[in-house]
Amino acid sequence: MILSALLTSVGINLALSLLYFALYSILRKQPGNVEVYAPRSVAEGKSRQDGGSDFNLERLLPSANWLKRAWQPSEDELLSKSGLDAVVFMRIFIFSMRVFAFASVIGIFVLLPVNYMGNQLEFDFIGLQNSTLESFTISNVNDGSNRLWIHFCAVYVFTVFVCCLLYFEYSYISSKRLAFFYSSKPEPQQFTILVRGVPVPSGTSVGHNVESFFTEHYPSTYLSHCVVHRTSKLKTLINDADKLYKKLVRLKSSQGEERFKRAGFMGLTGRRVDLVDHYERKLEDAEVNVRTEQSSIAVKEVRAAFVSFKTRLGAAIASSIRQGVNPTEWVTEPAPHPQDVYWPFFSASFTKRWICSILVFGAFIILTILFLVPVLIVQGLTHLDQLEFYFPFLKSILRITFVSRIVTGYLPSLILQGFLYFVPPIMIMLSSIQGYIAMSQIEKSACIKVLFFTIWNIYFANVLSGSALYRANILLEPKEIPALLAVAVPGQATFFIAYVVTSGWTGTCSELIQLKRLLLSSIRGIFGRNSRDDFEVPSIPYHSEIPGILFFSLLGATYFFLAPLILPFLVVFYCLAYIIYRNQLLNVYSPAFETGGKFWPIVHGSTIFSLVLMHVVAIGIFGLKELPLASSLMIPLPILTLIFNNYCLRRFLPAFKDYSAESLIRKDKDDENDPTISTFFAELENAYRDPALDIQYSRTDERINTPLLA
Amino acid sequence: MILSALLTSVGINLALSLLYFALYSILRKQPGNVEVYAPRSVAEGKSRQDGGSDFNLERLLPSANWLKRAWQPSEDELLSKSGLDAVVFMRIFIFSMRVFAFASVIGIFVLLPVNYMGNQLEFDFIGLQNSTLESFTISNVNDGSNRLWIHFCAVYVFTVFVCCLLYFEYSYISSKRLAFFYSSKPEPQQFTILVRGVPVPSGTSVGHNVESFFTEHYPSTYLSHCVVHRTSKLKTLINDADKLYKKLVRLKSSQGEERFKRAGFMGLTGRRVDLVDHYERKLEDAEVNVRTEQSSIAVKEVRAAFVSFKTRLGAAIASSIRQGVNPTEWVTEPAPHPQDVYWPFFSASFTKRWICSILVFGAFIILTILFLVPVLIVQGLTHLDQLEFYFPFLKSILRITFVSRIVTGYLPSLILQGFLYFVPPIMIMLSSIQGYIAMSQIEKSACIKVLFFTIWNIYFANVLSGSALYRANILLEPKEIPALLAVAVPGQATFFIAYVVTSGWTGTCSELIQLKRLLLSSIRGIFGRNSRDDFEVPSIPYHSEIPGILFFSLLGATYFFLAPLILPFLVVFYCLAYIIYRNQLLNVYSPAFETGGKFWPIVHGSTIFSLVLMHVVAIGIFGLKELPLASSLMIPLPILTLIFNNYCLRRFLPAFKDYSAESLIRKDKDDENDPTISTFFAELENAYRDPALDIQYSRTDERINTPLLA
Repeated sequence: MILSALLTSVGINLALSLLYFALYSILRKQPGNVEVYAPRSVAEGKSRQDGGSDFNLERLLPSANWLKRAWQPSEDELLSKSGLDAVVFMRIFIFSMRVFAFASVIGIFVLLPVNYMGNQLEFDFIGLQNSTLESFTISNVNDGSNRLWIHFCAVYVFTVFVCCLLYFEYSYISSKRLAFFYSSKPEPQQFTILVRGVPVPSGTSVGHNVESFFTEHYPSTYLSHCVVHRTSKLKTLINDADKLYKKLVRLKSSQGEERFKRAGFMGLTGRRVDLVDHYERKLEDAEVNVRTEQSSIAVKEVRAAFVSFKTRLGAAIASSIRQGVNPTEWVTEPAPHPQDVYWPFFSASFTKRWICSILVFGAFIILTILFLVPVLIVQGLTHLDQLEFYFPFLKSILRITFVSRIVTGYLPSLILQGFLYFVPPIMIMLSSIQGYIAMSQIEKSACIKVLFFTIWNIYFANVLSGSALYRANILLEPKEIPALLAVAVPGQATFFIAYVVTSGWTGTCSELIQLKRLLLSSIRGIFGRNSRDDFEVPSIPYHSEIPGILFFSLLGATYFFLAPLILPFLVVFYCLAYIIYRNQLLNVYSPAFETGGKFWPIVHGSTIFSLVLMHVVAIGIFGLKELPLASSLMIPLPILTLIFNNYCLRRFLPAFKDYSAESLIRKDKDDENDPTISTFFAELENAYRDPALDIQYSRTDERINTPLLA
Repeated sequence: MILSALLTSVGINLALSLLYFALYSILRKQPGNVEVYAPRSVAEGKSRQDGGSDFNLERLLPSANWLKRAWQPSEDELLSKSGLDAVVFMRIFIFSMRVFAFASVIGIFVLLPVNYMGNQLEFDFIGLQNSTLESFTISNVNDGSNRLWIHFCAVYVFTVFVCCLLYFEYSYISSKRLAFFYSSKPEPQQFTILVRGVPVPSGTSVGHNVESFFTEHYPSTYLSHCVVHRTSKLKTLINDADKLYKKLVRLKSSQGEERFKRAGFMGLTGRRVDLVDHYERKLEDAEVNVRTEQSSIAVKEVRAAFVSFKTRLGAAIASSIRQGVNPTEWVTEPAPHPQDVYWPFFSASFTKRWICSILVFGAFIILTILFLVPVLIVQGLTHLDQLEFYFPFLKSILRITFVSRIVTGYLPSLILQGFLYFVPPIMIMLSSIQGYIAMSQIEKSACIKVLFFTIWNIYFANVLSGSALYRANILLEPKEIPALLAVAVPGQATFFIAYVVTSGWTGTCSELIQLKRLLLSSIRGIFGRNSRDDFEVPSIPYHSEIPGILFFSLLGATYFFLAPLILPFLVVFYCLAYIIYRNQLLNVYSPAFETGGKFWPIVHGSTIFSLVLMHVVAIGIFGLKELPLASSLMIPLPILTLIFNNYCLRRFLPAFKDYSAESLIRKDKDDENDPTISTFFAELENAYRDPALDIQYSRTDERINTPLLA
């Protein structure tokens, strides 16, 4: 790619970003959009939803005061408003900004001039245009030149800097996590475990067995239990009844013809019936069904139960020590928060869950490999000649300079984005089949899956296919990886710069606009539906956001010494993303769950992977550039990095898995002085009861006068 | 290698084995050898050590009644005499016998005729002698022949058979382990944990901190603690004093000149001194030193302690839940049995232990790789032509048929054995540096290390170097491994048959003779030393025995369908080893520790590895033999085997790591009815006290009248 194509792409995206900024600052001032741009304050009742329709000019002018409001709150305020996960999420940006600001200084002021001063490329291709971006990359440094030692030192310095930052960040977030736990109020999940695989000898019930097992083994700490029921049928029935009820409300409020309909074929023939009567009878039937189902639910016990304890330590003991003699029975794990419980594919059986996890693992691998097909097609677009060869009728269009620039510079990453749009939901589905019992666990697992997927399908597939060296079996020849990467990675520098500006800049700015929700809200406004019923504050999808951000770090790390031109674009991206996500977390997203910062280990692991990948590429590059000594001296670096990682895992990771006995006991002691604790324990006994079981479903008696699901 | 060379080797080893058998049956009847061949009954006082010197002819005739006595005891008797580890050790032989008896039936009656009926080799080398062993291997089956499907089916059937056996064996040993735990008496290690990294603020002592931490956090179950001291200097002093004491005893008992010596140069000049006086004074000094050191030991506290609890569950809770907020402090683990505690390189510091384990890991890898040098030299011996090329002066000797047969058939494996002799002690040393705190843990870890070492250095190095295809970087090209192995593995069949008869048959039979101990005992007898003082019942070195046995299983599995001729030799080996080790466990070795069968997971893992290696070789072989469909259909087999392994690990492995809460509580409840439990708890408080601290060292007062270390 030549410089002008890149500039086109940067230009388009810069314009788009500014446009989005302006648009956002106008749209958010429209009172009708308050539900889209400040749902949190709506939910808290601070903002009037339909108030203040008085028009003034200021509402149509873009302004920047939202930036200030997003910037001002301190980390503690963010913590209190959005939880620790949001703080950790913002720490990713701060960490990345620090890393790449440092890298930019080295890259732009040291490496870039060195690269530019070389003349290897002129040497290789006589008469090459000076305007290609290649002359800013390491490819332009002369083979065997001692200037490559500058790159060598840069890699070492960068690695040491990143490792130090990683260490302090891990330590900082650990301490935040602990402080967050100490300052937390008693919460049901701290006192509760989920036990699965309860053995049920014939003639006894699950509840009875759970009760006797835990009263016998933990007489001093056992509090109560709550057996899990198969309620999917009941939930369907309740939903059906709800729909009927809503229909009825609409019919009653509407007047005239709508109420009547012919009973015959397609509502055109037969006698006229009163639809209100018709639906009322149907609703009555539905309610009878619900009540029958509710009363028969007792027999639909699943061999699993939530067991609550009187102390946090009691719950931690029961969840961390194997309970049953047989490892497939009495399988315990910490319970999630009652609102976080989510198990569309819940199973109490050990073997079933094991089979599911094996199947999901297989499906994930197959999906990741099959996704190469669209990636390969997209890569074809950057090679215009190939495209012209396969689709000759496009030749005339593609010859237009502007079109060719758009096609090569902008379209490939846009199409990739389109495909990638479907990946996070698929991974969420896979993770939920895997046997996780909470939305937070599913998102965390999906986050790791999406990250692997992104690295493999965006980074490796692009790098290796783009350089026409693509071979799916590269992983089977690990010895050749450094050399292969050394050839392929620098060649894709411009593609990835374009990717940063497209996906990074514009993608992040479009986050501001919330296009989907804006459209939904407009449609609702047009059709006059009462939107308050369906109003819901969204939560931030960590499983799709975090891998995206980490992927940019991977790009930054591997291109840091190859093509330092990418670094300023990255720094701009992180600054943009920092302020935008801060704004969104404060105004739009409310936390759906709280993991206490459990996403950080993923960030740490991904950064270590980026560093090691950078070292592997460096080993290859120095070999290729005829500086074998530098190549050999690079080998200890990945080993040392992995040893450092091993230390961090042992030093910090345990704190992210569970809390220590010391902390738990300290919190338990605090409770003793808490006057509200007895109320809490009374509530705890019913905290994990399925709400579907408790609904007093009797719409027909009260008719439409009571609110839904009283 | 031709058939006659193999027969020479088999002949030599068969003769040696029979000789050993005969020798053993004679030697064991000699009353002077009872210490060597029945140390257990000597230790139990059943057998008179020096009695019955009445000579009769029967003592010089070989007999076989010891075989009957070794065969008769049931598994339960073995369990009560030698513990669960010995039973598990014997199960390895039973398991292997079953596997290879089954494999022999298939191999000899199905595969061998099929191989022999082929004529691929005649095709390849016209005029080849029929007597080469190659015609019994898969190499002789015609390329692309449909008969190869018989081999294909054999691999599938064998895998299914082994997996079923593995499952039942794992299940059987799990249940044995549990029954063993239930029937055990209260033991100190069940109630005790080791805690390291005790934080000691200035002005406090370790003991005080441990006491206050555990009384605060576990008020109901905490019993007592015992701080670890740095006693290495004290132990050296005690040893020195002991040596002086023994010298003094000898001097006093000897008469005349020996007592006096000149004080000057080399004992030749100067005035005569009474050595008894001299040593008595020295001993007094030494005792003063010991006492000074004992009194100053209090300040030599290490930041670690053994903490005992009133219940097994209490100890299990404290060891399985992270205690300290900081994961590097209050690090707990289950304590070993007091007699099992062994820590030449003990360290209480988290960081130091981490560094040690990293260093040991590096050292292990380097050692494993460097060991290739002797292996390569040994391999040179099987290629006589190479040897003649490098050492031309040997040519005339090597031309003698018998010499060449010995050199190619027998010597290589013998030399390998010599080198391998030093491996287990080195691995023990590495494992002890790694931070394990018990001899049993060190032996288990060393066992895994030796196993890896053996597989890499005997199997792979031989296979790959022997076929002149040796490349150290094979692991860097995993895709080529099957094809490479397919070429290389069958070529080494005869070498490994020779290895089985040399190392397997003769090696195991020489175990009977206990040459080293026999020589030591004879030397002692000749020099008239009182051997009773130094008498010690040996323990079986699992870390060197188990990898050897597992290595034979690996050979059997990979050669099962390639060269079934190896199978009968293996079955003979297992039968021999079964009866010999049974005899040794009953008469010679007494258990030094009891892991409760924790060695079995190593056996399981190694068997799974053997199966997968067999599949990889099969994939390569079928590809090489121009039957690509069979090669592809073989690919699911290793995947299914690994999935099976995953299931077994989840189903059975937890039971080998720790006991469940259910079992622990059941045992704790049993204790309540045990009248001796209060005595036990009283003893428990001092069970982990270092004996060096308690020695009332006052030899000089009592002079030589009291036994050593009263």
